[in-house]
Amino acid sequence: MTVNLISDTATQPTAPMLEAMFAARVGDDVFRQDPTVNELEAYAADLFGMEAALFCPSGTMTNQLAIKCHTRALDEIICEEKSHIYQYEGGVYSMLSSVSMNLLRGERGKVLPGQIANAVKPHYDWLPRTRLVVLENTCNKGGGSIYTLGEAAALVAESREHGLAVHLDGARLFNALVETGESPQAWGTTFDTISICLSKGLGAPVGSLLLGPTDLIDEARRYRKVLGGGMRQAGYLAAAGLYALQHNIDRLADDNARARRLAESLEGLPFVASVSTTETNICIFDLAEGLTAARFLVELEKEGILAVPFGPQTIRFTTHLGVTDEQVDYVIDRLHRYARQGAAPAGG
Amino acid sequence: MTVNLISDTATQPTAPMLEAMFAARVGDDVFRQDPTVNELEAYAADLFGMEAALFCPSGTMTNQLAIKCHTRALDEIICEEKSHIYQYEGGVYSMLSSVSMNLLRGERGKVLPGQIANAVKPHYDWLPRTRLVVLENTCNKGGGSIYTLGEAAALVAESREHGLAVHLDGARLFNALVETGESPQAWGTTFDTISICLSKGLGAPVGSLLLGPTDLIDEARRYRKVLGGGMRQAGYLAAAGLYALQHNIDRLADDNARARRLAESLEGLPFVASVSTTETNICIFDLAEGLTAARFLVELEKEGILAVPFGPQTIRFTTHLGVTDEQVDYVIDRLHRYARQGAAPAGG
Amino acid sequence: MTVNLISDTATQPTAPMLEAMFAARVGDDVFRQDPTVNELEAYAADLFGMEAALFCPSGTMTNQLAIKCHTRALDEIICEEKSHIYQYEGGVYSMLSSVSMNLLRGERGKVLPGQIANAVKPHYDWLPRTRLVVLENTCNKGGGSIYTLGEAAALVAESREHGLAVHLDGARLFNALVETGESPQAWGTTFDTISICLSKGLGAPVGSLLLGPTDLIDEARRYRKVLGGGMRQAGYLAAAGLYALQHNIDRLADDNARARRLAESLEGLPFVASVSTTETNICIFDLAEGLTAARFLVELEKEGILAVPFGPQTIRFTTHLGVTDEQVDYVIDRLHRYARQGAAPAGG
Amino acid sequence: MTVNLISDTATQPTAPMLEAMFAARVGDDVFRQDPTVNELEAYAADLFGMEAALFCPSGTMTNQLAIKCHTRALDEIICEEKSHIYQYEGGVYSMLSSVSMNLLRGERGKVLPGQIANAVKPHYDWLPRTRLVVLENTCNKGGGSIYTLGEAAALVAESREHGLAVHLDGARLFNALVETGESPQAWGTTFDTISICLSKGLGAPVGSLLLGPTDLIDEARRYRKVLGGGMRQAGYLAAAGLYALQHNIDRLADDNARARRLAESLEGLPFVASVSTTETNICIFDLAEGLTAARFLVELEKEGILAVPFGPQTIRFTTHLGVTDEQVDYVIDRLHRYARQGAAPAGG
Repeated sequence: MTVNLISDTATQPTAPMLEAMFAARVGDDVFRQDPTVNELEAYAADLFGMEAALFCPSGTMTNQLAIKCHTRALDEIICEEKSHIYQYEGGVYSMLSSVSMNLLRGERGKVLPGQIANAVKPHYDWLPRTRLVVLENTCNKGGGSIYTLGEAAALVAESREHGLAVHLDGARLFNALVETGESPQAWGTTFDTISICLSKGLGAPVGSLLLGPTDLIDEARRYRKVLGGGMRQAGYLAAAGLYALQHNIDRLADDNARARRLAESLEGLPFVASVSTTETNICIFDLAEGLTAARFLVELEKEGILAVPFGPQTIRFTTHLGVTDEQVDYVIDRLHRYARQGAAPAGG
Repeated sequence: MTVNLISDTATQPTAPMLEAMFAARVGDDVFRQDPTVNELEAYAADLFGMEAALFCPSGTMTNQLAIKCHTRALDEIICEEKSHIYQYEGGVYSMLSSVSMNLLRGERGKVLPGQIANAVKPHYDWLPRTRLVVLENTCNKGGGSIYTLGEAAALVAESREHGLAVHLDGARLFNALVETGESPQAWGTTFDTISICLSKGLGAPVGSLLLGPTDLIDEARRYRKVLGGGMRQAGYLAAAGLYALQHNIDRLADDNARARRLAESLEGLPFVASVSTTETNICIFDLAEGLTAARFLVELEKEGILAVPFGPQTIRFTTHLGVTDEQVDYVIDRLHRYARQGAAPAGG
Repeated sequence: MTVNLISDTATQPTAPMLEAMFAARVGDDVFRQDPTVNELEAYAADLFGMEAALFCPSGTMTNQLAIKCHTRALDEIICEEKSHIYQYEGGVYSMLSSVSMNLLRGERGKVLPGQIANAVKPHYDWLPRTRLVVLENTCNKGGGSIYTLGEAAALVAESREHGLAVHLDGARLFNALVETGESPQAWGTTFDTISICLSKGLGAPVGSLLLGPTDLIDEARRYRKVLGGGMRQAGYLAAAGLYALQHNIDRLADDNARARRLAESLEGLPFVASVSTTETNICIFDLAEGLTAARFLVELEKEGILAVPFGPQTIRFTTHLGVTDEQVDYVIDRLHRYARQGAAPAGG
Repeated sequence: MTVNLISDTATQPTAPMLEAMFAARVGDDVFRQDPTVNELEAYAADLFGMEAALFCPSGTMTNQLAIKCHTRALDEIICEEKSHIYQYEGGVYSMLSSVSMNLLRGERGKVLPGQIANAVKPHYDWLPRTRLVVLENTCNKGGGSIYTLGEAAALVAESREHGLAVHLDGARLFNALVETGESPQAWGTTFDTISICLSKGLGAPVGSLLLGPTDLIDEARRYRKVLGGGMRQAGYLAAAGLYALQHNIDRLADDNARARRLAESLEGLPFVASVSTTETNICIFDLAEGLTAARFLVELEKEGILAVPFGPQTIRFTTHLGVTDEQVDYVIDRLHRYARQGAAPAGG
């Protein structure tokens, strides 16, 4: 058996999603003439109660477009130091927007109340201008941690008191919403811009959306074009995204439950030093002293279990559309078997 | 009847191309695990006799990645002033690569012998470093003008004498090759990098390829990722591109012939001041004094004929997969009828 | 005898200017506490009838700060292709401002009426946004050509009709004003921003000023700081600049007259193909066929005459504070002697 | 009495330094023809046993030129989070070099052993390339903390094991060397590049030097020019710098001793929560609960004592050439008087 816990980006379209894709009507989206892209953008904007949306090839692009639209050169962005925009986008905000980071040290990737107000810089010639706050929900490197809407709204209010715009990196926002029961509209009317991914747990092959006010989205469309993200007959991809938004949100609760089962099964195992709180579909745990992530992953791979390191002694498991209950049972079985084989991982 | 002469980017997949897409095997291309993307990249590299290829969402991205890989900040690029990279990519080379343009005034978008050598700058502290030459074949704004391999190779040699790298913007390269009978390999072994488009006359919905040495392509892949061009299950799009390269090259000769028929029919018409030499699928002509492109296009649109302005008194017609002989007949008929209605275009 | 016609940047302070420098009261200008810098900035702003001024280490910095303040990323600048900002500032606008150039082909570096209006781009996603016009008076590479205020004001009006800001690169503006008799105020109230140099014909050792509205100058001050142009006790340099503005403007008429004498003496000489119109302190001439600038400069240097090439067969002579009537006589004598020695320059 | 403890950038030239300036021979340094600049650069390079040096208007420029020369776009810099390049240079590394920061949390601004090795990133497409380490000695925001050569050399060795270049921000390096007795040569042969400031404790009015290998310094000279840092007759400033290096280093020990006296006097005062370890000329202390820096500074100013806030409840005192023993006595007296007036600072 092979179980791919590497990333929820590995999901492949289901049969009905594929059917939707190949029934799509398409046109040249650079001229805004692709009816399916237009339908997806309108649907998503409406779902979040926001004015407009823009379909992009990736979540990195939607985040970077948001940064570009919200900032000017020599501004700075406040974010938690575990944020995807700081950790996993190659530092490209420097190249695209000439901005720098003002990093906060929160908890599990979440900004704490008061941290933003404390981080805003006065206006001296030698300081960046604090301009934008980016929150991430769920926070990937924070172990899929959830902001409640109440927490997020308080941080947005704190930001606005200092004249800051607030972007939500919602690559896995729906994994949070299925837990909290909050509506997309409630989030959409709280933030200035939101980016969501269709290609993670939602199961579409390609694509993310940036949501925001019409004028900002128009500006983002121009940046998308010159960055090379303007696709012609993109409707085939948009059709999958539309299907995903219409059919695949609720099932994220299963992914979350499966990750929690994995987390529970890891608690107390001898080769595990600690398991991060697991609220959604990401389970992060530290290995006991003497063990390395590199070696542990090799052992897992012998059993057909694929995962990724998240530090020298840290492992990330991610559940998604392609991971079944049976597979989770299998992984738990193998983890327990591995534990029984003794403290020495080399014997695994 | 509606005839879309706006752009060859408007083409839609044919039924067999769609079938190829639908049958594609896919994976996560960010981890290089999409078999169809890998197959397309290998096929294209092989076709051109080059080491490696990279699939991207657009030709703007492939061109800009080439510029990024070939240059450092404060270098300059030599190109003809009609070049797509100067005219139609938003000046984004400044933002992405911190480079500027050293513009040549050639003929119909083509650089003339000796111009490159003459443009290379000495090394003073206040001058950009001349680093890269970009040629475009066919040249869109030059009216689809063709470089023969002999012409291009001489310019490449001239460039290399001065230590310059040379990139070919081959968005419509195949439109030239079907006329000259030259092979992709001959071009691939002449240039440092080449970008080709699958979504223009070749008829694929989305995508372009950057071709070049393995180490440069690896570097380009990283830039593609951080610019937001890393797509997950991109194999659906790659399948269409693969089909296009395998089935749709030869038929570009029909597009070229149709554009030439349009050009011939325009010669001598009273409302036409001059028709640009038409070698491939683009026909550019100037209107007679007193006429404006904006007004003329309105008249055409009344007849169901769609085209674009290329200047205040200049019109561009583009033929492609979606334009038939019957449609060309129809356009010619309407142009002649329009001519008969008298010099005054307002009466059209 | 040594005659330095290389550049008016070579001037050295006169004794009274030196005395002014070393009597200067100084402070930390980064905190705006240098009284002499403050005095110079106020004096210059008043002289031009503009709100504020900023003292900088060089004219490249004042020009680039203006560009930075007037533009956003992916804007474009309209200027004549001989402009200093395009030719001699290393293309650094790309790196600092992420903008590109929209080049005009005027006459002797001067933009012609109608060219700006014609160059403004429509708002498509793939085009730069036209934002700023830069004029240069006098134009160095144009042979020290002069815009009259009437000509310049018409171009400013043309620019403003299209919502464009207009910056004047006035590195040698005073060389023009002593010819036309126009006042600095008349120019100051015409342009959005002006940069002037104190270290060329005016004879100060170091420094340029950017003039403009208070809020823009405040923004420029911040950019100056982070670019590394914030100097501490800069008052020693400012004192020289203040002296220059108060004492050295009128004498530029002598430099201009001397350059015209050189130009007249070159007319008709057998080794000269043509002499550019010489209106101010720069005289540019082309050598006859068969002669190269490199070789000709070697011949001149044997006679103690130093100048610079301005192309493969082009020479630039520049007069300034350090060039006397006697020196001009000497140069003319040597040029005529050289002419008498026959067509073959090798015999010189 | 007025005592300026704001910054050692406030120093003014002494009479003999002014005489040296006044006697300087000068030329056009853009063409490398200023003899005094050349002499200063040669002297400094020799002092540090390094190949070459470059005179710049500020320490921000020397640091940023070093970053520009050592990195390419999308690289990252490792530095301690209190570093000047991160805190006080406006985040301009993003704009000039398209790089981002990988921040370490050390002690008093000093990087700890092992931190660098642990921070180096693997080569994934979505990660910055770790390229450069910057150390700061003394560290301003770290309270003027000193690295011994042994500590620094170990960090350099750790960096080089990972192929990283290492730059030293030595704006106040001499304040450290007069304490440790180490030689500039020992530091010069340890680092790839060093920047030193002439305008702080050394008392020159303007200027910093970047030291490094000849080819790197040549590249830095070009960047200096296009950033607008190329000054013409800069020899007047260079003469002051040369005087400072030849006469003013040893006396920094007095500044250091005076700052330590201030630190000792603050220990145990009721309005002081804690005093940072004071090794050189910077003394940082936190105010007791209920007190704010803004208000405390107003109280000090009433007594003619000027200083700056370094946080909401933190104060920085800096000693320098312009602060005498008598002034320090006076400050200590006023601090004690203030303490006696009771806990309520409003009564001060």
